Amino acid sequence: MIELKEYLAGRSAVVDRALDRFLPKANVKPATIHKAMRYSLFAGGKRLRPVLCLAAAEACGGELEAALPAACAVECLHTYSLIHDDLPCMDNDDFRRGRPTSHKVYGEGIAVLAGDALLTQAFEVLTASAGSARYPTAALVRELAEAAGSRQLIAGQVADLEGEGKKATLRDLKFIHEAKTAALLTASIRLGGMSANATPKKLEALTGFGKNLGLAFQVIDDILDVTQTSEKLGKSAGKDVAAQKTTYPALLGLEKSRKEARRLTDASLSALKPLGKTADTLRAIGAYLLEREY
Amino acid sequence: MIELKEYLAGRSAVVDRALDRFLPKANVKPATIHKAMRYSLFAGGKRLRPVLCLAAAEACGGELEAALPAACAVECLHTYSLIHDDLPCMDNDDFRRGRPTSHKVYGEGIAVLAGDALLTQAFEVLTASAGSARYPTAALVRELAEAAGSRQLIAGQVADLEGEGKKATLRDLKFIHEAKTAALLTASIRLGGMSANATPKKLEALTGFGKNLGLAFQVIDDILDVTQTSEKLGKSAGKDVAAQKTTYPALLGLEKSRKEARRLTDASLSALKPLGKTADTLRAIGAYLLEREY
Repeated sequence: MIELKEYLAGRSAVVDRALDRFLPKANVKPATIHKAMRYSLFAGGKRLRPVLCLAAAEACGGELEAALPAACAVECLHTYSLIHDDLPCMDNDDFRRGRPTSHKVYGEGIAVLAGDALLTQAFEVLTASAGSARYPTAALVRELAEAAGSRQLIAGQVADLEGEGKKATLRDLKFIHEAKTAALLTASIRLGGMSANATPKKLEALTGFGKNLGLAFQVIDDILDVTQTSEKLGKSAGKDVAAQKTTYPALLGLEKSRKEARRLTDASLSALKPLGKTADTLRAIGAYLLEREY
Repeated sequence: MIELKEYLAGRSAVVDRALDRFLPKANVKPATIHKAMRYSLFAGGKRLRPVLCLAAAEACGGELEAALPAACAVECLHTYSLIHDDLPCMDNDDFRRGRPTSHKVYGEGIAVLAGDALLTQAFEVLTASAGSARYPTAALVRELAEAAGSRQLIAGQVADLEGEGKKATLRDLKFIHEAKTAALLTASIRLGGMSANATPKKLEALTGFGKNLGLAFQVIDDILDVTQTSEKLGKSAGKDVAAQKTTYPALLGLEKSRKEARRLTDASLSALKPLGKTADTLRAIGAYLLEREY
């Protein structure tokens, strides 16, 4: 476990350095937008998506360097989605990772634009990838655009927004989780595999891993929103309840929700079987995510 | 002139049909976002950027079909920028092309997401392009991402936002116009050339055409904001004055601004010389844009 934490810290540092290279410096004109992009991008995020991307590439026999553009692209994209989700017209969150959100620091106009800029930057960064024999760079761009688009990531945010104050069924909730969390997590992992020229069979294994891991991750987040304090979460706790959002604990109760989180994580780990020992790092990260206190 | 109007109407219809094919149908779940995307995309826009993209491809000996994904991508991108520009935290505009803006119809949250979705869709649509021998699809993606990014399109919006109520110099104003208008117009034209495998010399000619045309277009818009009624503009007139934005007429006066618009359009037409007769359509469109009553 200590080893894994060191591994995660090391990989996170590799991603940070690459992001620093890919992003315009904070003094590039107009400075405000580049400061705002960097404020949210370097806010102590866990770099979960890029680390999974890199680990997936290595599980398929690829080089870390070849997957770095994809890893950085998914982190830019994830950060954009957080900035826009936090806006007053969306979730209206004042804190994120223990710091004031972008619009609290820079105002709403710049926060909208900083999100737009990071979304655009994600695609620019992705074109630094050489792609691979099976998956040219344009296939990687399509993968990211589909996961981030109106049928997946944005669909989840819309359903979430429209669901406030309404009772959702388990099926609605699963759609939101799949769209809002699992889609980008799965794309992050698949993009690692694609950078490493993964065979269709290996890519399918990564897909099963990603989808179930994404759902597990979101169920755990739902649980933590109920059970943790704001201080420990680094963001406002109890937001889901306050916003009358339907959550797993609200629908199933805490115990069944915990069981579901464990079931999904098991399904995610089983999906990796075809990859054998090369996927041990991915397995360790998956297990680590389940072992968050919830 | 009547011929050109027919040509523009014909091309605009080709673009509309292609956009309709590329975009998710309005009933795809969640329907709200797909309705909102289509509401703004099919709002009677002139399709100037996609028409220029297609004409540039033909000026370089390319097929119209090969440039259609790029043409549709730039229109999705342009529409996203309008939706976000109109938001209350930005220009706060209630009308666009004579209709209520996205946030007036769908609310701010969905308007932010509809813009995000169209920006993402632009890159997805662009991956439907096969690229060309000199310019693989990833080069097209990079071209669009750079023009739309924090150093160009978004930089212009930031400078615009930060300039409200402040006196700008002619140099500031030129930066805003280059970034906010000329960058995407130039990219639209270059993407047409790249789809048609243009030689570096031809691509350079298209670039000069686009940059000067974009600046001319923006100077004319500044003039029209002063001289036209809201009804004729299809959007709120006098907004620049009301927002205390510096404009060409404010800095140079109307007559000198008109002269500058004509000088820029001449420069744009001269840039096309290396393309010879194949660029006659581009020339006609350029001349047509200058002949707006201003």
